[in-house]
Amino acid sequence: MKISIVGATGYAGAELLRLLASHQVAEVKYITSESQPGTAIADIYPHLTRFYPQTLTSLVDLEKLAAESDVIFIGLPHGHAMEVGRKATAINPTIKIIDLGADYRFKNHAVYEEWYKVPHTHREAKTVYGLTELNRSQVREAGIVGNPGCYTTASILALAPLVKNKLVDLTTIIIDAKSGVTGAGRGLNLGSHFSEVFESVKAYNVGGHRHTPEIEEVLGGLAGEELTINFTPHLIPMPRGILSTCYANLKAGVTPEMIDEAYTSQYGNEYFVRLLGRGGYPVTKNTRSSNFCDLGWHIDKRTKRVIAISAIDNLVKGAAGQAIQNMNVMFNIDEKTGLDNAPVYP
Amino acid sequence: MKISIVGATGYAGAELLRLLASHQVAEVKYITSESQPGTAIADIYPHLTRFYPQTLTSLVDLEKLAAESDVIFIGLPHGHAMEVGRKATAINPTIKIIDLGADYRFKNHAVYEEWYKVPHTHREAKTVYGLTELNRSQVREAGIVGNPGCYTTASILALAPLVKNKLVDLTTIIIDAKSGVTGAGRGLNLGSHFSEVFESVKAYNVGGHRHTPEIEEVLGGLAGEELTINFTPHLIPMPRGILSTCYANLKAGVTPEMIDEAYTSQYGNEYFVRLLGRGGYPVTKNTRSSNFCDLGWHIDKRTKRVIAISAIDNLVKGAAGQAIQNMNVMFNIDEKTGLDNAPVYP
Amino acid sequence: MKISIVGATGYAGAELLRLLASHQVAEVKYITSESQPGTAIADIYPHLTRFYPQTLTSLVDLEKLAAESDVIFIGLPHGHAMEVGRKATAINPTIKIIDLGADYRFKNHAVYEEWYKVPHTHREAKTVYGLTELNRSQVREAGIVGNPGCYTTASILALAPLVKNKLVDLTTIIIDAKSGVTGAGRGLNLGSHFSEVFESVKAYNVGGHRHTPEIEEVLGGLAGEELTINFTPHLIPMPRGILSTCYANLKAGVTPEMIDEAYTSQYGNEYFVRLLGRGGYPVTKNTRSSNFCDLGWHIDKRTKRVIAISAIDNLVKGAAGQAIQNMNVMFNIDEKTGLDNAPVYP
Amino acid sequence: MKISIVGATGYAGAELLRLLASHQVAEVKYITSESQPGTAIADIYPHLTRFYPQTLTSLVDLEKLAAESDVIFIGLPHGHAMEVGRKATAINPTIKIIDLGADYRFKNHAVYEEWYKVPHTHREAKTVYGLTELNRSQVREAGIVGNPGCYTTASILALAPLVKNKLVDLTTIIIDAKSGVTGAGRGLNLGSHFSEVFESVKAYNVGGHRHTPEIEEVLGGLAGEELTINFTPHLIPMPRGILSTCYANLKAGVTPEMIDEAYTSQYGNEYFVRLLGRGGYPVTKNTRSSNFCDLGWHIDKRTKRVIAISAIDNLVKGAAGQAIQNMNVMFNIDEKTGLDNAPVYP
Repeated sequence: MKISIVGATGYAGAELLRLLASHQVAEVKYITSESQPGTAIADIYPHLTRFYPQTLTSLVDLEKLAAESDVIFIGLPHGHAMEVGRKATAINPTIKIIDLGADYRFKNHAVYEEWYKVPHTHREAKTVYGLTELNRSQVREAGIVGNPGCYTTASILALAPLVKNKLVDLTTIIIDAKSGVTGAGRGLNLGSHFSEVFESVKAYNVGGHRHTPEIEEVLGGLAGEELTINFTPHLIPMPRGILSTCYANLKAGVTPEMIDEAYTSQYGNEYFVRLLGRGGYPVTKNTRSSNFCDLGWHIDKRTKRVIAISAIDNLVKGAAGQAIQNMNVMFNIDEKTGLDNAPVYP
Repeated sequence: MKISIVGATGYAGAELLRLLASHQVAEVKYITSESQPGTAIADIYPHLTRFYPQTLTSLVDLEKLAAESDVIFIGLPHGHAMEVGRKATAINPTIKIIDLGADYRFKNHAVYEEWYKVPHTHREAKTVYGLTELNRSQVREAGIVGNPGCYTTASILALAPLVKNKLVDLTTIIIDAKSGVTGAGRGLNLGSHFSEVFESVKAYNVGGHRHTPEIEEVLGGLAGEELTINFTPHLIPMPRGILSTCYANLKAGVTPEMIDEAYTSQYGNEYFVRLLGRGGYPVTKNTRSSNFCDLGWHIDKRTKRVIAISAIDNLVKGAAGQAIQNMNVMFNIDEKTGLDNAPVYP
Repeated sequence: MKISIVGATGYAGAELLRLLASHQVAEVKYITSESQPGTAIADIYPHLTRFYPQTLTSLVDLEKLAAESDVIFIGLPHGHAMEVGRKATAINPTIKIIDLGADYRFKNHAVYEEWYKVPHTHREAKTVYGLTELNRSQVREAGIVGNPGCYTTASILALAPLVKNKLVDLTTIIIDAKSGVTGAGRGLNLGSHFSEVFESVKAYNVGGHRHTPEIEEVLGGLAGEELTINFTPHLIPMPRGILSTCYANLKAGVTPEMIDEAYTSQYGNEYFVRLLGRGGYPVTKNTRSSNFCDLGWHIDKRTKRVIAISAIDNLVKGAAGQAIQNMNVMFNIDEKTGLDNAPVYP
Repeated sequence: MKISIVGATGYAGAELLRLLASHQVAEVKYITSESQPGTAIADIYPHLTRFYPQTLTSLVDLEKLAAESDVIFIGLPHGHAMEVGRKATAINPTIKIIDLGADYRFKNHAVYEEWYKVPHTHREAKTVYGLTELNRSQVREAGIVGNPGCYTTASILALAPLVKNKLVDLTTIIIDAKSGVTGAGRGLNLGSHFSEVFESVKAYNVGGHRHTPEIEEVLGGLAGEELTINFTPHLIPMPRGILSTCYANLKAGVTPEMIDEAYTSQYGNEYFVRLLGRGGYPVTKNTRSSNFCDLGWHIDKRTKRVIAISAIDNLVKGAAGQAIQNMNVMFNIDEKTGLDNAPVYP
């Protein structure tokens, strides 16, 4: 299984490299970067010393890269991945594409274009939304996977059983999410400057974060009807981790046991979803560096609301880990391959 | 103005001492502790070296303490403050009491007893809820002030203009709050152990936090009708700061300008409330070590909700600072006395 | 290969469990705790959910435990491990013991007794000091390994080539070390309380830290003569990581190239020591969660000193990782087994 | 007392503004920035809202600025301050200049030019090195003060009594210093990127940091002979604070009591130096946001070394606070004016 990574110098790319270093089947072939071609991986990410002797190459070699790879992970900014996807599938029609960005996430291209402000140039692509636990069988057959966003993974996993089983009023969904700073990437800006972020918390992009329509499309698909949500992201002074606190009004007649049953039947056999049960409190640190999503839910009898809470590592289950999970599914090998490490705690 | 502090070894007590050290009018007379009587302040809190030569005394001296003090700040666990309050006012009828705990916060003693699991033993006390910006004129006349909780201060300041002006549907209020770890006090437990908290975030006490009924009573008073809210506290890996993200559905016909007007007319002349306006993003760090509350609000047109966000330092505006602000009001001196320092940033 | 862990509820014990979960050969048999027998591992350490269905047992079962185990890791406070070691080897003479504490680290029992204030009760034990890179061949034959302390591992690895090759004046060695807070364990005390440690740094135990005689004995052994050092530990506001900055005066005539050669010949073939070369700057984060020790050295021409700097994860190469490395050596399997993961960064 | 600040957008500039907001005598007149002229202070530093209505001006107004100011604080990069100093003193000969950078720190201009790689263009300036506790009487008469560096303030205060009283061997001085990240400024670079710095520690500039010659010149002056030291800075994952751990060999016959006496006689009457005594452990957090320097010292009998440790807030006693302290001395007002606040803890 030959793998190439296109755009590997961001944190998600580095995390792919970290995880693939322990993957028993995968062999990393090409690693590209347009900003630093010719540089050794270990010069950019010294923690990877001993694992990658390779040097970054430029994408000008796409012909060769696509011909010699079984699967490409794409870690480019949105708008660029679909170009690579279009060309690579033309060169090698059996190649598998897993895009960690937004280009292949939306069924509705108009929504993509509205929120991302670029035209979609690969509309004919047959794509699958790679939230593995929800779409495993389609992922298995997919040629191109749009790997979900970090916030969306945490939020959808928490809400899917409620929405799918029609247990909540769809007009009342509010998602209040808290993310570590790696979600903002390795690019320099004052908002990620150490002394500015440390001992501080803030909300951002209220009502306007691009993960909003992604959550809406997927939950809407599960519900069988369109829905509109509130999604509020917050920046937490830590590098890794997302906690998603999700609120919804219970429909009349819905009992706590029905909620429990919805979670258990959805995730009871899922290795990477650890159910903490009703009253359980996920803690981001318990998932750190792992592909687990920890899930707990609460019923507030006074307000007749359910509060579902999920925790993930945004760089693993929220990006690189789920991408590898999808790859494992696509190649019909054990889904846990390369991902079965215990979280690093504390 | 002679001040005594009863129960001064917690973080709120230490913060009172820090702030009072710069207060031009106040003189600190007695500082008590039942756990460490006879110990020098600077041995417990070395940062206060140069400011307090005093030694902690035991409360057995309450007779003398009450007789020689103009005002007592109480920093005891709930259930104990009302005992001190009852005795001190009996000894010295003109003494002023400012309790940083919950004992004097509730008008409805049954609610207090239900949530705090102790009988209220000072029901005849005439008390004022010390959220200064809302109750300034009553505070001025008060003998006993129940100083608000940290979460409640942040949340009520954010929601008061909306509730008071009947701009939102009262059944839809959800408060998702994020607090630093000093809110959990200086007592030792695994939940405040450095390595457990660091690089981690979690929710706790969903549906059951004791600040819930406090918020409900005060907002209900402003609304003129009872209301029930969701309040979810979260622990953030930082010592100081609270960010309160508050959601509510707009009533039909409410425009963004009406929301703006509600905030401006409520707080336009308030020194300690800094309005960031519609679209503004409060940042806890901008308020650190100060008595300011920063406030911003957002209208989500898609969901017809208002999202109001407030930031405070939980130990200052959420505890010791507001207590001093109340004292200043009670003694008719400039409300900013001892509190007019710029926040420490970064 | 059947493994038991005696005293597993501290951070080093939890780290053993984390690492052993990915070890292809080892099977964890018994996990003991005197404080919480009968509790499920995952209740104490939820991050280990999915990896350990076991429940903690009490040491009253030592007879059975020793009979059914090939190797025992001991994570008990000093003074207790030697009791377990003495009994376990009596029960099962071929059993291997790896003690993560100090009981088996010293050749000179008088030094142990002086610094640890307890009598040594297992003096006849034949033990090897388990700094794998220095004592690999002895470890291979050992029945009992005294696994090195965290500070000592970092410091000795940095200084060994200089001392062994007589390149520095032995009377001038100063070690200034910086450690994360997990080094202080999971026990509750004000010194590990989140809000006290955060945004703060301090030294402690100047001239009196118990890792001092351990470093002196090992370096003295390499030098062939007794030596006395200064060792100053500091507490850094982070959970994991040690940086050891080591100073020594160069002997007359020693050139930079001789220093380089000493490091290269000592560690050039060591997988877990990554040489950053002359002028290199180790960064603790680059080793986080891994068994690597990163090493760099600097020559100050103005003062004729060498400054050698090492970085490790105190819980891995400084405790559990090196313990497993030693076990691999003792059982003649690939030394990297279970330890060949890339560090978690950032 | 009219103050202008030239180059106010860095962290030291912001800290000057924070502290001057509480200064009873000073009035801030002009605040300049070449990068953001025309911008309101509160837009760059929202925490200063309510304290500075001013807008940044450009230095093109230097003529007016110098004529209307009694004192100028300069927060420009080295090489630029001496230009401003030269012109400003020409315009207004009685003006006082306090430069927070390096341009006016060195008596020996050749040393400045060697380490800073720029020609010194204001050699005729009569300057005083503004370590207030050591040079108070000269500061009082000074026209131009070179305000000390942060590392140098901490290190010199710790070592001065030892060097001045000839208690230690001058060839054996080693300073191992640990600094928060604000020392690296507000400029963007990967080395100050949140996720890179968090949970990590490293050394940098071994043998080459520019504070080295500054420490050497001042200590050499106290000793009455030239000396050469080792100075090793480290980056600690916190915004504020410096801990300086200083090692030196005791001269023969020096007793612990002689060391105690040296510290007590030097600093016994200094308000801003808090002596923790022999065996004392300074903690950076105890000085946070304040102008205090906490000092402790240790005698290691085994190695016959003294280890002196100091803690400061690098932005206050290490920059803006000491600048104001110097200004107070220059204008003959109470040295504590504007600086007498208790540290913010925790």
